[in-house]
Amino acid sequence: MQLQLQPCSCQSPSPRHLTSSSLRSAALEQRRRRPSRPANKCVVRAGKTADGPTVAIVGVSGAVGKEFLRVLTERNFPYKDMKMLASARSAGKQVDFDGQHYTVEELNEQSFKGVDIALFSAGGSISKKFGPLAADQGTTVVDNSSAFRMTEGVPLIIPEVNPEDIGSLKAGQGGIIANPNCSTIIALMAATPIHKAVGIKRMVISTYQAASGAGQAAMDELELQTREVLEGKQPTTQIFPFQYAFNLFSHNSPMGPNGYNEEEMKMVKETKKIWKTEDVAITATCIRVPIMRAHAESLNLELASDLSESKAKEILSSAAGVSLIDDREHNRFPTPLDASNNDDVYVGRIRRDISRQDECGLDLFVCGDQIKKGAALNAVQIAELLL
Amino acid sequence: MQLQLQPCSCQSPSPRHLTSSSLRSAALEQRRRRPSRPANKCVVRAGKTADGPTVAIVGVSGAVGKEFLRVLTERNFPYKDMKMLASARSAGKQVDFDGQHYTVEELNEQSFKGVDIALFSAGGSISKKFGPLAADQGTTVVDNSSAFRMTEGVPLIIPEVNPEDIGSLKAGQGGIIANPNCSTIIALMAATPIHKAVGIKRMVISTYQAASGAGQAAMDELELQTREVLEGKQPTTQIFPFQYAFNLFSHNSPMGPNGYNEEEMKMVKETKKIWKTEDVAITATCIRVPIMRAHAESLNLELASDLSESKAKEILSSAAGVSLIDDREHNRFPTPLDASNNDDVYVGRIRRDISRQDECGLDLFVCGDQIKKGAALNAVQIAELLL
Repeated sequence: MQLQLQPCSCQSPSPRHLTSSSLRSAALEQRRRRPSRPANKCVVRAGKTADGPTVAIVGVSGAVGKEFLRVLTERNFPYKDMKMLASARSAGKQVDFDGQHYTVEELNEQSFKGVDIALFSAGGSISKKFGPLAADQGTTVVDNSSAFRMTEGVPLIIPEVNPEDIGSLKAGQGGIIANPNCSTIIALMAATPIHKAVGIKRMVISTYQAASGAGQAAMDELELQTREVLEGKQPTTQIFPFQYAFNLFSHNSPMGPNGYNEEEMKMVKETKKIWKTEDVAITATCIRVPIMRAHAESLNLELASDLSESKAKEILSSAAGVSLIDDREHNRFPTPLDASNNDDVYVGRIRRDISRQDECGLDLFVCGDQIKKGAALNAVQIAELLL
Repeated sequence: MQLQLQPCSCQSPSPRHLTSSSLRSAALEQRRRRPSRPANKCVVRAGKTADGPTVAIVGVSGAVGKEFLRVLTERNFPYKDMKMLASARSAGKQVDFDGQHYTVEELNEQSFKGVDIALFSAGGSISKKFGPLAADQGTTVVDNSSAFRMTEGVPLIIPEVNPEDIGSLKAGQGGIIANPNCSTIIALMAATPIHKAVGIKRMVISTYQAASGAGQAAMDELELQTREVLEGKQPTTQIFPFQYAFNLFSHNSPMGPNGYNEEEMKMVKETKKIWKTEDVAITATCIRVPIMRAHAESLNLELASDLSESKAKEILSSAAGVSLIDDREHNRFPTPLDASNNDDVYVGRIRRDISRQDECGLDLFVCGDQIKKGAALNAVQIAELLL
């Protein structure tokens, strides 16, 4: 395969390129558009090419599945052929990609024949059943579920953070690579450059998480509920057991015996695996807020040695995939709408922690698109490392 | 004055008792109603009574001003006469209270003649101009602005926390008492019982603050913007310079040279004054979320000595003005809608901080009504201490 190296132009598509159902979402994400900065190594410019890999999308009808297609298009990912896979419920539907129509096929044990790369986002049980099966047939799987993240030997990759952990694994060789949890990715995009510079000993994290983390149905319910509440109606509660519109609540993942929910423990455990250390202490409080598709996180960092604010800003401003919005004079800092539909993780409120006597504390506020960098973009970036 | 001591029944009014403009707000705060628990010493049952104080409401047309009237009614606050004061813009309007019609008078230097208690919520500059003037005329002022909070000699009171700091000051004696910032009140309602039991050395706080903290106009704009965004229109941005609907942003108060905004520094400074110690370290990140009237806060506490989860729950469940919602099995914890229109501060996610090797860390999640306990209720409770 010959790759043509070109400068990136990873712009988000304009609203007129979105499907009609996406148009409504676009309205919910209305914002002052900021120019999108290309995330890290966006060097592959090919699209459909005879010497590209055959790529399968598993769970193509879901929010992340659709985003896989959008990101593959934006990044002009090279491919020879595409397979659109989903459950029986979605089989037979039509999907457009790169100017071609595809028919969604029902996922089964024969689906991966000849597939070099499979991007999975169809839930943990599907990944557990079909991931190893695909890998055994020579498909290199990039899995967005939590099924294999903590499995020994399965690389857990944020391309800007630990690309080396992917080893020599390539497309078509067979294997599984895990995509970290969205909240972990977004936190570590900002925290890792600081960690690499001076070391982070402890993090106290509070999240402000978007509906998209619970899937398209949760986004739809948030929109529906909001309309209902504005009309004075009782809100529909099918996805979550209580009102989400104009409300927020502790993350809905199951609670462990230590009082931390699974989302919080993912942040704790995945960070240690990605950073390859047990010597980082983390406590997290994960909260869902009535936002559509970008997470925010408040990070309080205890550093191993002192770090000035100006040095922290310098480190973060040169970090791949990170953009600073940190304008104290105009009170302009990252918001979820800044991050929505963009590749980068946005960082601001960069300041010395005044609750510490030493100079080893730093507070940050970060926002990142949950569907994009928190899921589909990170997975496609991993796939690029396999080429 | 003879006070009749009766058991409390401080229920929120049902929606049918609200004015038509409040009905719309009630829809925005729709929720599964929980029984309201009476907050602390609710023993005064009198209403209009010849031997009660004359009470003035300064800023009666604002969100907190209206809430003063509602809380005075709910608590059957004893009064001989009422004066409704506001700016020239609102003068002449009619206000109903306790079954009587009142005409709003323009606030001026003669307004406080014969007034025993004045509840101020008309902004800092009005408080600075008229607070001392009223106090000089023998009016005891309870001020909801930040004008005098940090002034030496001015008590800064949360009745459940430091009622003793009010000293012997009574209605009609002249003086100023400050109502703390809403975020401070809500945090300290939960943190103080823990602090009194074992001592708190450091707090890392992230807030999820409602629109109401920026006044009725901000609540109205959030509602308007939400409708506009759902209709695909560009949102109106008169109160805040960017979209608030389906978005969140760093608190809009001015930023200091240390990178903390005024809201955050209020939490730091007011806590030290209320707890009468410099030995508590605090860092806060204050964020506005698209919620109508109740704040949430994530609190990470470093304790002076160890404290078990069960003991922490025991302490909090017996604390005045605090209710626990902490059901791990059913993933049911406090939400802003639980707190909206209720007196108590709701606490949950009570858990040992796993990022600490010692047993001296505790995480909490709290929700409290910003207009009620964060402002009007706390002020009226202070006024009760003056009787």
